[in-house]
Amino acid sequence: MRLSKFPLSTTKETPADAQVVSHQLMLRAGYIRQLGSGLYSWMPIGLRTLTRIAAIVREEMNRAGALEVLMPSVQPAELWQESGRWDKMGAEMLRFKDRHQNDFCYGPTHEEVICHHFRQDFRSYRQLPVNFYQVQTKFRDERRPRFGVMRSREFLMKDAYSFHMTADDLHREYLNMRDAYVRIFTRLGANFRPVKADSGNIGGALSEEFHILAGSGEDLLAVAEGGTYAANVEAAETLPSGKPRAAAGAAMTKVSTPGQKTCEQVSKFLEVSLSGKVKLLVVKGAEGGLIGIALRGDHQLNEIKAAKHPKIASPLTMAAPEDVLKVFGCEVGYLGPVACPIPVIADFAAAEVADFVCGANENDHHLSGVNWERDCAEPETADLRMIAEGDVSPDGIGTIKFYRGIEGGHIFQLGTKYTRAMGVTVLDADGQAVVPEMGCYGIGVTRLAAAVIEQSHDASGIIWPDAIAPFRVIICPIGSDKSPAVKDAADKLHDELAAAGIDVALDDRGNRPGSMFADAELIGIPHRIVIGDKSLATQQFEYKHRRAEKAEMIAATTAAVLERLSA
Amino acid sequence: MRLSKFPLSTTKETPADAQVVSHQLMLRAGYIRQLGSGLYSWMPIGLRTLTRIAAIVREEMNRAGALEVLMPSVQPAELWQESGRWDKMGAEMLRFKDRHQNDFCYGPTHEEVICHHFRQDFRSYRQLPVNFYQVQTKFRDERRPRFGVMRSREFLMKDAYSFHMTADDLHREYLNMRDAYVRIFTRLGANFRPVKADSGNIGGALSEEFHILAGSGEDLLAVAEGGTYAANVEAAETLPSGKPRAAAGAAMTKVSTPGQKTCEQVSKFLEVSLSGKVKLLVVKGAEGGLIGIALRGDHQLNEIKAAKHPKIASPLTMAAPEDVLKVFGCEVGYLGPVACPIPVIADFAAAEVADFVCGANENDHHLSGVNWERDCAEPETADLRMIAEGDVSPDGIGTIKFYRGIEGGHIFQLGTKYTRAMGVTVLDADGQAVVPEMGCYGIGVTRLAAAVIEQSHDASGIIWPDAIAPFRVIICPIGSDKSPAVKDAADKLHDELAAAGIDVALDDRGNRPGSMFADAELIGIPHRIVIGDKSLATQQFEYKHRRAEKAEMIAATTAAVLERLSA
Repeated sequence: MRLSKFPLSTTKETPADAQVVSHQLMLRAGYIRQLGSGLYSWMPIGLRTLTRIAAIVREEMNRAGALEVLMPSVQPAELWQESGRWDKMGAEMLRFKDRHQNDFCYGPTHEEVICHHFRQDFRSYRQLPVNFYQVQTKFRDERRPRFGVMRSREFLMKDAYSFHMTADDLHREYLNMRDAYVRIFTRLGANFRPVKADSGNIGGALSEEFHILAGSGEDLLAVAEGGTYAANVEAAETLPSGKPRAAAGAAMTKVSTPGQKTCEQVSKFLEVSLSGKVKLLVVKGAEGGLIGIALRGDHQLNEIKAAKHPKIASPLTMAAPEDVLKVFGCEVGYLGPVACPIPVIADFAAAEVADFVCGANENDHHLSGVNWERDCAEPETADLRMIAEGDVSPDGIGTIKFYRGIEGGHIFQLGTKYTRAMGVTVLDADGQAVVPEMGCYGIGVTRLAAAVIEQSHDASGIIWPDAIAPFRVIICPIGSDKSPAVKDAADKLHDELAAAGIDVALDDRGNRPGSMFADAELIGIPHRIVIGDKSLATQQFEYKHRRAEKAEMIAATTAAVLERLSA
Repeated sequence: MRLSKFPLSTTKETPADAQVVSHQLMLRAGYIRQLGSGLYSWMPIGLRTLTRIAAIVREEMNRAGALEVLMPSVQPAELWQESGRWDKMGAEMLRFKDRHQNDFCYGPTHEEVICHHFRQDFRSYRQLPVNFYQVQTKFRDERRPRFGVMRSREFLMKDAYSFHMTADDLHREYLNMRDAYVRIFTRLGANFRPVKADSGNIGGALSEEFHILAGSGEDLLAVAEGGTYAANVEAAETLPSGKPRAAAGAAMTKVSTPGQKTCEQVSKFLEVSLSGKVKLLVVKGAEGGLIGIALRGDHQLNEIKAAKHPKIASPLTMAAPEDVLKVFGCEVGYLGPVACPIPVIADFAAAEVADFVCGANENDHHLSGVNWERDCAEPETADLRMIAEGDVSPDGIGTIKFYRGIEGGHIFQLGTKYTRAMGVTVLDADGQAVVPEMGCYGIGVTRLAAAVIEQSHDASGIIWPDAIAPFRVIICPIGSDKSPAVKDAADKLHDELAAAGIDVALDDRGNRPGSMFADAELIGIPHRIVIGDKSLATQQFEYKHRRAEKAEMIAATTAAVLERLSA
């Protein structure tokens, strides 16, 4: 491609409203242009990268045996009413009426639609398993679209849906998709981790997210150093240590702690460690009433895990201070499990502390030297806290360290949630109607481009991995307006590389070297060839990889360039 | 692809609600499945064809120098208000509000969006010309979606928009796009015609439609037999014959024609030919009042052409009978140009008739032997009628014959309609702000699949041209469950063809020959290879082209098959 025929629109200024570097660079390099809040157009150079990402996704999905389909973006409300999600989905789902006043939505996902088509055509176990996927436009009306295409409202998604006779077969396909995702993220040239995840409102049992590691990521990941465990902190389990609790060593004593309400204040005031403190949070119970959650002073509540506890209301709802005052007779800062008027569930770690400090259920007072069993009932225990850096990995291997990640993919075992709701059955070998198991597998195609940039850039611009660069190599001729030899050499190299199937750009816009190099670096072309009279005099081209500190001289032949590209 | 891994869902029954053959066959062959009114999903086999069509479109657009982009489907109302189309577009444009109660539409087209992006980045004549295209999902809320994907509500469209400094350069690109479209439609294997077209509400001066000829087409085309002229009858010009009008030969006589109101009735009653009758239609004038349109008795009014006449109101509005009665003092059936109380514009052909019959502007009476100039004022003339079969072609070469066509593409010279409305300017070489000329070029990607089927099918099913068949060749092994030799030969041929880059299907589902053949014919695979013990005994495969009457035997080698495919 000759850049004289391929308008670039680059700028040195950092757009004021772009907070993350990928958004800044995609605007500066002319990859995307904003149309409205959370609405972006992909300009020619940007679409080249987006198309390459989509092609890799398609190739690996096909290789994994999934079958591509294309379903409408506009979906009738009836299907969502059938699954029960028409009322459950919030304002994020864009709803509208057609000219006949029928209800529709702009599909944020396609479980209902694929179940509908599946039940039209699939009758027998002989037709299973099957895995349908599409690369298709979704709309989610985010309350606060941000970070450019990282969290836009309209975006391209690869979504796949598989159907199975048994949970075992679903698990097999889940692993097959997991392998395909590993291949996809590897081919993108991304530093990624599959991590255990919460299934959110898609539902189902087992799920993993594929995260691209980047400091700007919105998700916090718990990764075991020296082990293989990795989970979104939202979903990371914490388990009992397995060691017996230390024996009680101190007498329970009421101490005056005037105005000391937070764990940090009490810990400092009484000179005890945060981990020697047990705090009591009060939440609404699943069947009304209040429930106390006991946590170690240095631990944080994991609201997602707490909301899944059968005795705790979902979504998690903290008790109002006035209700706490009514039930406990004291303020929130002085609560504790001793003589507690409500049932208490202790996080595993909180239940392992001996001689702890806690609120006395009396304003301006705490208790020290408190011990479970001796001073208050041995509590019911559960996994309720956020995992913390330094924790032993839940699988016992390695120590937890936190990373930030950008979710690029998510695979789910849905089970029969949707097939059951939508009345989907197939006949098994004995002629019995069976509700098939279902899996679903998503990749945020649009977001991946931004995520890779978050991970791979420098002060000069984007650094694309070869596989998804808009052009793999750029030729910069110096003074080609004055030197026919330079022009001819550049044209020849361009044409021969193109004929060899290489995506090559020739900067024939007649710009000065500095401007050419700045554009090439900003848009992130991985390989650069400079051709000038000087280098031609010694029959050499100048070659530089986008990541290299310095350029080097290579033979002025197409073969030498091709060798560099495949190095 | 092994069909055991590629679910087909075929049926012999013709779906009751599918009126046209392409809709019937696409449902029967499992290409598409309906989701709602005018909403269709493309199943795996159907998407293979759709993808091939889109790939051909992309290749030829790229070859023509157009640059692919991807713009959002959801468009802010503000842009449409700027162009003035927010109020002009009717119920066909799907409108909705987002969670913040801002107005949006599901884009039926993208002139406004591309103008918006263009004015963000393009400042100088040096950046022009440029032609952007996308293959993207559109929604048009048709009042009566019908014929499956032929007139669906959500569909895939290739839309392109070019910008130019001069009308000449726009014309150059228009011809460039015309050439690209000819290449695209030729590669699709379609029998097509580019025809002159009306620009409709997209606006602009010059436009042509690309029609796939098919008896079920919704458009009527006027094509010159023995010439090159072709136009949508909506847009076909009719010109004066160039011959002088015959001299008046009869005296004007009032005749009693009680109850004879239509041309046909009067012609029969007075025993004169329809072409010897002049009828007068009364329409609203552009500046109020009424206008009479004189047409030959055998000619039909072309409402689109009439509405473009500067003296006639647009959209064309027929006068109410009570207004006619008030002005003429008689009923609609007895109107004529003699002593006419309103201005008359005559169609060219009507102005050439001598000694004609027309209404007497008096109930139950006509005039015969009427002549322009002698009996009534020589009228203003214009091109107001529908072209008719048997007419001399407007360019004088050949005779008009009607065909039916399916509009698959449309190219327009828009001029400055949108750029002016959207305040788009670029600086010319002298630093003067110029409003750029704009062209737009559409292809209904989704519809093309159906259109080709309308043109290419038989009683057994679809007959795909090689270029867009879901599979180019299908291998049908006979008795492969019992014969390892047959199974091995089929597997080997499949794998070798696939390795040679051929899209090959192997029907390894274990079906009987009749069922295999019926499926292969229904889904329209152009080439079929049958392998059985009998043919293997003589080291032969059976080969049959989908259009051939009979199968023939070829050598049982992959090379022999490849030779057939490229024949």
